[in-house]
Amino acid sequence: MSERKMVHKITHVTVRDVRFPTSLEQHGSDAMHTDPDYSTAYVVVHTDSGLQGFGFTFTLGKGTEIVVCAVRALAGLVVGKSLQEIVSDFRGFYRLLSSDGQMRWLGPEKGVIHLATAAVLNAVWDLWARAEGKPLWKLLVDMDPKQIVSCVDFRYITDALTEEEALDILVKAQEEDQMLKEGYPAYTTSCAWIGYSDEQLKQLCTDALKSGWTKFKVKVGADLEDDTRRCRLIRQMIGPDKTLMIDANQRWDVSEAIGWVSSLAEFKPLWIEEPTCPDDILGHAAISKVRGKFGFPADSCVEDLFFHFIVVILHPFVVMLLPVCPHAGGVGLCELVQHLILFDYICVSGSLSNRMCEYVDHLHEHFTSPVVIHDAHYMPPKDPGYSCEMLESSVKKHQYPEGDVWKQHKNN
Amino acid sequence: MSERKMVHKITHVTVRDVRFPTSLEQHGSDAMHTDPDYSTAYVVVHTDSGLQGFGFTFTLGKGTEIVVCAVRALAGLVVGKSLQEIVSDFRGFYRLLSSDGQMRWLGPEKGVIHLATAAVLNAVWDLWARAEGKPLWKLLVDMDPKQIVSCVDFRYITDALTEEEALDILVKAQEEDQMLKEGYPAYTTSCAWIGYSDEQLKQLCTDALKSGWTKFKVKVGADLEDDTRRCRLIRQMIGPDKTLMIDANQRWDVSEAIGWVSSLAEFKPLWIEEPTCPDDILGHAAISKVRGKFGFPADSCVEDLFFHFIVVILHPFVVMLLPVCPHAGGVGLCELVQHLILFDYICVSGSLSNRMCEYVDHLHEHFTSPVVIHDAHYMPPKDPGYSCEMLESSVKKHQYPEGDVWKQHKNN
Repeated sequence: MSERKMVHKITHVTVRDVRFPTSLEQHGSDAMHTDPDYSTAYVVVHTDSGLQGFGFTFTLGKGTEIVVCAVRALAGLVVGKSLQEIVSDFRGFYRLLSSDGQMRWLGPEKGVIHLATAAVLNAVWDLWARAEGKPLWKLLVDMDPKQIVSCVDFRYITDALTEEEALDILVKAQEEDQMLKEGYPAYTTSCAWIGYSDEQLKQLCTDALKSGWTKFKVKVGADLEDDTRRCRLIRQMIGPDKTLMIDANQRWDVSEAIGWVSSLAEFKPLWIEEPTCPDDILGHAAISKVRGKFGFPADSCVEDLFFHFIVVILHPFVVMLLPVCPHAGGVGLCELVQHLILFDYICVSGSLSNRMCEYVDHLHEHFTSPVVIHDAHYMPPKDPGYSCEMLESSVKKHQYPEGDVWKQHKNN
Repeated sequence: MSERKMVHKITHVTVRDVRFPTSLEQHGSDAMHTDPDYSTAYVVVHTDSGLQGFGFTFTLGKGTEIVVCAVRALAGLVVGKSLQEIVSDFRGFYRLLSSDGQMRWLGPEKGVIHLATAAVLNAVWDLWARAEGKPLWKLLVDMDPKQIVSCVDFRYITDALTEEEALDILVKAQEEDQMLKEGYPAYTTSCAWIGYSDEQLKQLCTDALKSGWTKFKVKVGADLEDDTRRCRLIRQMIGPDKTLMIDANQRWDVSEAIGWVSSLAEFKPLWIEEPTCPDDILGHAAISKVRGKFGFPADSCVEDLFFHFIVVILHPFVVMLLPVCPHAGGVGLCELVQHLILFDYICVSGSLSNRMCEYVDHLHEHFTSPVVIHDAHYMPPKDPGYSCEMLESSVKKHQYPEGDVWKQHKNN
C-alpha cells in the first residue's frame, strides 16, 4: 500500500471553466483585447495516493469552454499513468501529449490544443513538485542538469540548440541566497491598461511609485493621439530615469508600426512589444531597424510552458546577448512565471542585467499561495508545488456559467 | 415575404462530428499521422428563406469534438446576420470571426479556432454561391475584382501585398472554355500511403497508370530503408519521364531532413514536402540549399480557407515565379480546392505551367456533388455552391460516436 502511494497513479483529471469579470472595470484591456474577462481552464490531476496536482491555462473569457473540451480529450492520454512513470521519461510524456497521431492535426503546438497541453503539463509539474515537497523552482534548481535536459523534446530545434549545448549551459550560476533575500526584479503593467482613464492612470502611477516600482509598461496601439497623451503623462510622472515600455498587442501592420513607433520614440520606451503579427519574423526585423529593442524572444513564452521557456533561456544566443523579460499577469501567470525566472537566474543566466519579469496586481487573492512582491521584486515562493492551486471557494464562485458571480452578472 | 427571402437571414447553425474509420485500412497514413480516421466538423448554416449553406473543416479523428465546440462558440457571432449583410462587408465578417476580443487569444488564426473559422466561412461561401445559383468558382470568376479584394483582410500583409497590387493582378487571364473542355491537371497521392504494403502499392500504381495518371506522390519519413525501396519500386513502375514527389509530413529535424533528402535524390523527386516543422522558415531554407524545390507556398493552404489561398496566389512573387500545387485529399478537400484552382487559372495565373492540384481517391461517394476526374484532370463542377454538401445518410451513419459505423466498430 505505502509503495503504491509513492507511485501516485493518476486516476482522473477534472477541468473547470473559471472566469473573472475583469472587463467590467477594463482591467487587462489593450488595443486588440478590448474587453477581456480573465479566465482559466483549471485542471486538477487526481492520484490514488490522494496527492493532487493543480494547473491551468490562461484565457480571455469566451471560448474557454473549447479549451476545457481539449483538456478532456488530452486527459485520456494521462489517466492510468503514474507520476513515477511520467518523470522517468518526461520527454516521452510531452511528445505523447503534443504528437498524438490524430490530435496533432489540431495544432500542432498551437492555439487551443497548445493551451490545453500547457494546463495539463502545469498540473503534472505541480504534482511532481508537491510529491518532492518543494516549490517548483527549487525542484528544478536541485535537479541534475541531465534530468532537466531529458525533460525537453529537441525535435525541430537541434539546428538551434542540441542536447549537448543545453547541458553545457546548465551550470549552477548563482547561489539561492541573494534571491531569497532580495528577490527578482519586476516591472508593472498595472497602471496603464488601454481602457483606464487618465485620472485612474495618474492615481495608479502615484501609488506604484510609492510602493517602489521603477519600470512601467503602457498599452498602446488603438489611437495615436491617446497614446501620445498617456505616454507623456506617465513619462512626466516617473521622470527621465525610470523605465517605460510600450505594448501594441499585435495591433499594427508593419508600416503602421514603423510610423507609430517613430512618433512615440520621444518618450524613450525601452521596447515596443508585439508591434505586429507575432509570427512575422521579417516584419519584426523591418520595424526593429527603425527602433531599437523588442521584447521579442520572451514573447515566445505566452503559453508559459516550461518547455518553451527553457528552450528560450538555454539558447546560446539568448544566454549571451538578449534580454529575457517574461510575460506574466492574467490569472496566475505571475504565480507560475516566478518559478521559471528563479531557475533562470540560479542555473543559467546568473545575472540580473537585462532581466526583469512583468507583474500585474490582479486576482492573486484567488490563489492558495499567492505571489509575494516586496519593493518591486518577486520573493521566492516557499510552498511545495507550482503555485497553481486556486481557492476552492473562488473556483466555485467564478465557474462559468453556473457560479454565483455569473448568475448575478446575468441577472443585472 | 419574397424580399425577406432574398436577404437570407441566418437563423441557426448546426455542427456535427462526422468520422470515417480510414485507419482500419491505413488510408491516409504518413510518417506523423500513422492512424488517421479522416473526419470533419460538418456545419450547416440555416436561413429564414430555407436556403442552407454547407461547410466543413478536415480533421483526423480524435479531437474533432473540440472543433465542434469551437464552431458552436463562433456560431454566436453569425446567427442573426443576413447573407446580404455579410457579403456587403465580407472583410468585416472575416475580422469579426477571427478577431473577437476574447476569442482571438485562442489562436489567432491558428489551430482549432482556425479550423472552426474555416468550417463556418466555407458554409457561408457555399450559401452565397447557392444564392447566386452558381458553383463557387464561377461566382468568383464573374465577380468584380474590386469585390474580390474587398473580401480579403489585409491586416499584417500590406508589406507583402497591398490592396492596389492585388487589384492589378486580378485581370481575367483566360476564358473558361479550356477548363470546361480539358479540366485542371492533377497528381495522385492515392497509391503510396505509408501503411500500404508493396503489393498494394504496385496494384494501385498499375491501376493509376491505366487511368492516365502521370504524377505520383509518395509518403516517406519513418524509415529510410522502407522509403528507398518504395521510391525505387514506384520510379521503376512509372519510368523516368513521369513525375514523382515525396512528402515527409513534418517528421524530421533539419539535419535529418538534409541527410534523408540526399539519400532519396536518386529517385529524382520533383519536390520534398514538409521536411520539418512547417513554421521553421530558416530550416526550410537550409534544406532547400541541399535539394531544389519545395511545395512550400502551397503548404500555407492546409486549412483551405479562401482567404489564405487568395493571398498566396495573388502575391506578385508567386504569380511570376513559384509553382502553386494545392493540397487536397482528406474528406472533401478535393471538392473544395477545385473551385479555387479554377479561379486561379481563369483570373490570375492564366497558365498551367508549374500548376497542378493534389487528388486522392477516397470518400467522394459521401458528397452530393462529388468531384469529377477525367484523364487525371479535375473537371469543373457545375452544381451551385462550394461542393461541400454531404449525403445526409452518410452523415448519420458516420456521426461520432452515435452513428451505426461507430456503434458497430465499438462492438467488434
